[in-house]
Amino acid sequence: MPTSVKIFDTTLRDGTQGEGISLSVEDKIKIARKLDELGVHYIEGGWPGSNSKDIEFFERARSMTFKNAKITAFGSTRRKDSLASDDINLNRLVESGASVATIFGKSWDFHVTTAIQTTLEENLNMIYDSVLFLKKSGMEVIYDAEHFFDGYKNNPEYALQTIRKAQDAGADWIVLCDTNGGSLPGEVSEIVSIVTKSVTTPVGIHAHNDCELGVANSLAAVQAGARQVQGTINGYGERCGNANLSSIIPNLQLKLHYEVISVEELQTLTSVSRYISEIANMHMPVNQPYVGNAAFAHKGGIHVSAILKDASTYEHTKPELVGNKQRVLVSELAGQSNVLVKAQELNLDFNKEHQKTKEIIEKIKEMEHQGYQFEGADATLELLLREAFEGLEEIFTLESFKMLVEKSANQAVVSEAIVKVKVHGETIYTAAEGNGPVNALDNALRKALIQYYPDIKNIHLSDYKVRVLDEKGATAGKVRVLMETTDFKSTWNTLGVSSNIIEASWYALVDSLRYALISRQRVEPVNKDQQERLGLVNH
Amino acid sequence: MPTSVKIFDTTLRDGTQGEGISLSVEDKIKIARKLDELGVHYIEGGWPGSNSKDIEFFERARSMTFKNAKITAFGSTRRKDSLASDDINLNRLVESGASVATIFGKSWDFHVTTAIQTTLEENLNMIYDSVLFLKKSGMEVIYDAEHFFDGYKNNPEYALQTIRKAQDAGADWIVLCDTNGGSLPGEVSEIVSIVTKSVTTPVGIHAHNDCELGVANSLAAVQAGARQVQGTINGYGERCGNANLSSIIPNLQLKLHYEVISVEELQTLTSVSRYISEIANMHMPVNQPYVGNAAFAHKGGIHVSAILKDASTYEHTKPELVGNKQRVLVSELAGQSNVLVKAQELNLDFNKEHQKTKEIIEKIKEMEHQGYQFEGADATLELLLREAFEGLEEIFTLESFKMLVEKSANQAVVSEAIVKVKVHGETIYTAAEGNGPVNALDNALRKALIQYYPDIKNIHLSDYKVRVLDEKGATAGKVRVLMETTDFKSTWNTLGVSSNIIEASWYALVDSLRYALISRQRVEPVNKDQQERLGLVNH
Repeated sequence: MPTSVKIFDTTLRDGTQGEGISLSVEDKIKIARKLDELGVHYIEGGWPGSNSKDIEFFERARSMTFKNAKITAFGSTRRKDSLASDDINLNRLVESGASVATIFGKSWDFHVTTAIQTTLEENLNMIYDSVLFLKKSGMEVIYDAEHFFDGYKNNPEYALQTIRKAQDAGADWIVLCDTNGGSLPGEVSEIVSIVTKSVTTPVGIHAHNDCELGVANSLAAVQAGARQVQGTINGYGERCGNANLSSIIPNLQLKLHYEVISVEELQTLTSVSRYISEIANMHMPVNQPYVGNAAFAHKGGIHVSAILKDASTYEHTKPELVGNKQRVLVSELAGQSNVLVKAQELNLDFNKEHQKTKEIIEKIKEMEHQGYQFEGADATLELLLREAFEGLEEIFTLESFKMLVEKSANQAVVSEAIVKVKVHGETIYTAAEGNGPVNALDNALRKALIQYYPDIKNIHLSDYKVRVLDEKGATAGKVRVLMETTDFKSTWNTLGVSSNIIEASWYALVDSLRYALISRQRVEPVNKDQQERLGLVNH
Repeated sequence: MPTSVKIFDTTLRDGTQGEGISLSVEDKIKIARKLDELGVHYIEGGWPGSNSKDIEFFERARSMTFKNAKITAFGSTRRKDSLASDDINLNRLVESGASVATIFGKSWDFHVTTAIQTTLEENLNMIYDSVLFLKKSGMEVIYDAEHFFDGYKNNPEYALQTIRKAQDAGADWIVLCDTNGGSLPGEVSEIVSIVTKSVTTPVGIHAHNDCELGVANSLAAVQAGARQVQGTINGYGERCGNANLSSIIPNLQLKLHYEVISVEELQTLTSVSRYISEIANMHMPVNQPYVGNAAFAHKGGIHVSAILKDASTYEHTKPELVGNKQRVLVSELAGQSNVLVKAQELNLDFNKEHQKTKEIIEKIKEMEHQGYQFEGADATLELLLREAFEGLEEIFTLESFKMLVEKSANQAVVSEAIVKVKVHGETIYTAAEGNGPVNALDNALRKALIQYYPDIKNIHLSDYKVRVLDEKGATAGKVRVLMETTDFKSTWNTLGVSSNIIEASWYALVDSLRYALISRQRVEPVNKDQQERLGLVNH
C-alpha cells in the first residue's frame, strides 16, 4: 500500500502575498471550487483576523459543499501577556465557521526576542494556550512552526520545545516552515528526520522558493517522514513564492509513488493551474514544469525525429497524466483533445476524416496561434463549433463603430461610442456614452439591439479581464480580452484578441451577446408589432 | 581551502532551444562579454556543425579577449560506421578555433538501438574515436554523456562503459546529463557518487528543470563529487529549461561555500541576469530567486515591521551579495511602515509628527482606497513622495487629449490620439496614430516632448498590465493600469487608476515619462538653439 500524503493549498492566503496578485472574494470562491476539483485536502481561505474581505470569504464558503477539501482559516498564536480566550484573532478563527484552524507561532529564539520581543517562556505559553483554545472550540488544529529550520539550526532544543508544546495542547498536525526559503534539501531531510522521531503528531512541510529549492525541499521532507505538504498552485507567494504544488503533486505521485490525489484528478492539473493563473491575472511562464505550454514542447530537430520514433526518448513522463500535451514546435502537431471534448458535449458530428472537421481544426489552430486561448472561453468556442457544424443565424452584423475618449484639464473624462449595425435587415445607427470606452460600446450595441431583443436588459457583463500577450511590444503588442457575462441564472465567458484593446473588447462583447441571443436561445426576438406595444421603438 | 567548482554556461547553445528565444550573432557576442564579466569558466557558443550563424560567432569570438572564460564549441560523436577524421561535424569543431570542444554521445542502450539505430559496440567506438580525434587536434575535450541517468537506471554496466571509453580516449571532463529532466536529487546523488568512484576523469553535471529540480539536482551532484556545473542564465532552454545558473552560483557559493566566482563577480549576478533577459527579449519573472525584482520584496505588514528591526528575520541572505536590493511593497496588507522605508531610501525628512508627513500619508491612503496599489509601482510612489517633500519641476501640463478608435466592416481598426500639452510655457498641439489607443497616446505625447527632450527616444514601454478592480461593475468598474518602462539600464513601474481605461493609461504614461525626465534626471532638456541645431523643431 502506498503511503498517503495530504496536500494543503494556501494559494488564497500565502499566494496572495505575491507581488502583483490581488484576488476579490468572487475570485477566491472560484479558485476554491477548482482546488476542490483537483482533490487537495485542505484549502486555506485567508486570515479572518486581518481583513474584512477574508471574513466575507468564510461566510460564503460556509454555505458551499466541497467534495474533497476542508476549509481552513489562518491566524497566529495569541498576543503576549494576554488570555487566548480574549484574543480577537483567535476568536475570529472560531467564528469563521471553518472546520480547521491553522495558526503559526515562533520556533526561532532570535525571533521571539527580536521580532515579538517577549521571553522564551512566554512564547511557549502562547503556543500552548492558543492550540488548546482552538481544540476546545472543536476545531482541527494545524500548528505552523514558523522559521522552524532557522530556529533549529540556532537552538535545536528550544525549537523542539515549541512544537512539543503544540503537541501537548493537542495539535493535529505540526508543520515545519522554511519561512525565509534559505534551507537546502540536505538540512531539511536531516531536521525532519529528527523531528518525526521527537514527536508523535503527524508532521508537514511548508517551504519557500528563495533558493529555487521549494519543490526539492518539500520532496526531501516527505522522504524523511512528513505527511502533509503546504504550497500554492503555480508557486505564487511572497518574494520568490511558495513551494509549487503544480510540480510537487506530480513528483510525489508519478515519481515517488505516494498516494496523493486520484488518477483522474491529476489529469486536471494543467487546466486547474492555467485557470488559476487566468483568475489571478498572472502570466503563466511557458516553460513551467508539467503544466506550462512548452513543458512537453520539442524544438530541436534531433529531438523531434527521436520522439516520433518513441516519445520516451525525450519525455520524462507522459504529458496526458497531468492533462498536458506534447507539442512539436516545428510541425505544429498539437492535439485537439479539448476541441474534441467540447464537440462531443455539443453532440456535433466531429469526425477527423471529414473536410468540415479539418477546416474548423485549422481555424482554431490559427486562432490559437494569434493568441486565442479557449480554456477560459467556452462560449466563444461553442459559437465557433456550432457555426462550423450547424450554421448559426446571423442576428446582427457590424457596419462600423467609432469610439471617442476626450479629456480636458480639470474636467471629467468623457467616453462615447457610435455604432452602426444591421439587425434583421434594418440598419440601426445609434450612439451612447459610458463609464469608460468598453462600457460605452456595450451601451451603444445594446441600445441598437434592445428593440428586437428586450430581454437583453437582464444580461450584464460581470467580469472583464485584459492580458497583454506579447511581452516585447508592450502596448504595441497583442491584447487578449476575456469577458464574463451573466443572466443571473448562468454565466458564460467570451474572448477577443487584437493588437487594439478596443477591437479585442468588441469581439468579446459581440460573442457575449450572440451567445445569449442565438446559442442559448434564452432571449426570444420580438417583431415590429410587439416592439410598438412594448414602447421599444426609437423615435 | 574551499573546493573549487567550474561553471559551464550554455545559454548561447542549449538556452536558445527555449521557446521564444532567438539570438543574433551580435546578441551572442554581447552575452558572451557579460558572461565573462560574471566569471564563468566555459562559454558554449554554439554548434558550428549545425548552422552558419554559429560558425560566424566563433569567427568573431576568435579575435576577442576573455578575462575568465574559455570558449567551447558543441557537437556530437561521429556518425555510425564512418571515420572520425571524415566527419564534417567534428572537423567544424576543430575549425571553429575554440580551445575547447564539447561533444555528446549516447549512454542509454535504448537510445542507441532506437534513436540512432546502431549496435552497442559501434556506439562505444563512436565515443572513443571522436574524443581521440579532438584530443589529437590539441583541444580540451568535454564529453557530455547524454541521458546518463536514464541510461544508468536501465543498464548501469553499459552506461559506465560509455564514459570509460571517453576517459580512455583522453577526455578532460565527463559530464553526466539528465537530458529529459526526470531524475530526482536522491538518484542523482547516488549515481554521481558511483561514477566518481568509477572514473579518474573529473565529473560534471548537466541538469534540466522538467520536475522543477534542475537546481537541486545540480547541487546534489556537486555534493556527491561533481566539479563542473552546466546550465544557463535564468534557466533558459528547451521545454522547462536548463538548470538555472542564476540560482546555482549563489547557492554553491553562499550556502555550500564552494569556490566558484569572486565576491565582486557575484555582485554582478543580478545585473548580468537582467541584461541577458533584455538581450534575449524574455520577460524576467519578478519572483525569480536571487535576481528577480521581488526576490527581496516584502509585502506583509508583520514581515515589514520585523525587517525594520532586523533584516535577517525575513531574509535568507543579504541581497547586496548578488547585486540585488531589498524592496518594501506598499499594499493593503501593510501598515505605514512601508511608506516610511521608501521615504528613508529617498532620504526624505519623513517624521510622523510633521504636518507634511501626515498629509502625504492621508493622500496615499485615499489613493489606495481608490484602487491604487503601490507595490510594483515604485516610480509613481517616488514621484508622490518627492513632490510632497521637495516639490518637483512641472515639466509639462495637460490641456487636453482626444482618443479615437474607428472600425468599419472588413477594414483594419484605426487608432488616433490628439494631444495638447504645455511644455516650458509653449502649447504644443499634435497628433499621432498608433497600434492601439494607448500606443497612439504614447506616440502623440512623445512627439510633443521630443523637441525638448530628444533622449526620450531611448525610453520605451516594456510591459503593460490591466486589472479590473470592481468585480460587480465590470466595465463600469475601475481599472488599474500598471506600466513598466525601460531605458535598458534600469526599469521603473508606474500606475494609473480610473473608471476609464484610457484615462488610467494616460496617468501611468505621464508618470512613466515624468519619472524619466524629472526624477532620475537622466534626460536633460535642450533649449531652442540646440533644438534647431539638432533639427528637432517641428515645422
